[in-house]
Amino acid sequence: VGGEARTGLRQRLDLDERRARLIEVGQRVFSERAYDEVSIDDLARAAGVSKGLLYHYFANKRGYYVACLQGLAEAMLAETLEAVSRSLPPLEQLRAGLDAYLSYVDRHARGYAAVFRGGVGSDPEVAAVIDATRTAFLDRLLDGAPEVVAIGARQHPLLRTALRGWIGFVEAASLDWLERRDLGQRELRELLADVFVASVDRALLGPRGS
Amino acid sequence: VGGEARTGLRQRLDLDERRARLIEVGQRVFSERAYDEVSIDDLARAAGVSKGLLYHYFANKRGYYVACLQGLAEAMLAETLEAVSRSLPPLEQLRAGLDAYLSYVDRHARGYAAVFRGGVGSDPEVAAVIDATRTAFLDRLLDGAPEVVAIGARQHPLLRTALRGWIGFVEAASLDWLERRDLGQRELRELLADVFVASVDRALLGPRGS
Repeated sequence: VGGEARTGLRQRLDLDERRARLIEVGQRVFSERAYDEVSIDDLARAAGVSKGLLYHYFANKRGYYVACLQGLAEAMLAETLEAVSRSLPPLEQLRAGLDAYLSYVDRHARGYAAVFRGGVGSDPEVAAVIDATRTAFLDRLLDGAPEVVAIGARQHPLLRTALRGWIGFVEAASLDWLERRDLGQRELRELLADVFVASVDRALLGPRGS
Repeated sequence: VGGEARTGLRQRLDLDERRARLIEVGQRVFSERAYDEVSIDDLARAAGVSKGLLYHYFANKRGYYVACLQGLAEAMLAETLEAVSRSLPPLEQLRAGLDAYLSYVDRHARGYAAVFRGGVGSDPEVAAVIDATRTAFLDRLLDGAPEVVAIGARQHPLLRTALRGWIGFVEAASLDWLERRDLGQRELRELLADVFVASVDRALLGPRGS
């Protein structure tokens, strides 16, 4: 590799690093205050950079926000994956994943509520990040439990619908939890795990009493 | 009542009726085409009125849209209520309500998907309509089943969280159903009813096996 290429690579890394730092700052600012209350000036001030530099990295406030949201979604997916050891029994894997999810929700309460209640004026880009996150969780659930793999879950419409429904249950229950704060995390996790088991059983085994 | 008051009342009724007709037209247009593809000109043309008249009733396209959405939410709440006879056993009431809900979703597929996937750029007013609709369904569920009333459900955080979670399940599963169309309405309804029973049982009776 010649000197010129090395310099190019170095500059690229510097750009990536600066962008990552700007995203960290943005995530903090957007988690502390409502989207509509934050201006580009506030964001530039918090990052200690000029507005011009921000516009170099992001098209506008919405683009900055979407990049921050994308980073948060990736972090949530990574944390919940790391928390799950594949050597555990399936139900323990589910519990560990849910604990990591709820811890994440707890630490990013304002951002989570804003995104899932549609309060930030979710546009197609925001909807795309949410959709991609839900699909990633769905894929993990479909690939996860051995009995699910065994029956060819991807060709099983009722199971897929039940899993997508359950992800909606988790999101709605998490919002309720953040709003009321009258349940312990463990209590909520156990409810979610039990409803998962009931939903999958129901989808695979058919109606109760049949 | 004097002639002047009668004239005022008559004018008021005319205004209400015209507004109701504009909302009907808007609901049709917004259900046939995506929000961003519809202009105020299109809406005025579809209603056979001037843009000026539209602006007399609604502040802007977003205000018109929110009024149409509000009308749809009210219709959904009314239809699901009418479908349920209080003389039926609780589980049959739930099934009848779910059937009415899914029929409604089916007939307003595009609007439902747009609202619940956040694709229309949901702003605080849209979020408020969604929240109010969810709360109305939650209140019905909390007031509905006798065993729920008996235990004082409003003071039971886990049951409230489970019911809000289940409403999220219904919404997510409905979206999946609209997108894939590979389940019958009856099959989906039975899944939703069984997951409801499992969720409420779990919230009231505690963890499985305890």
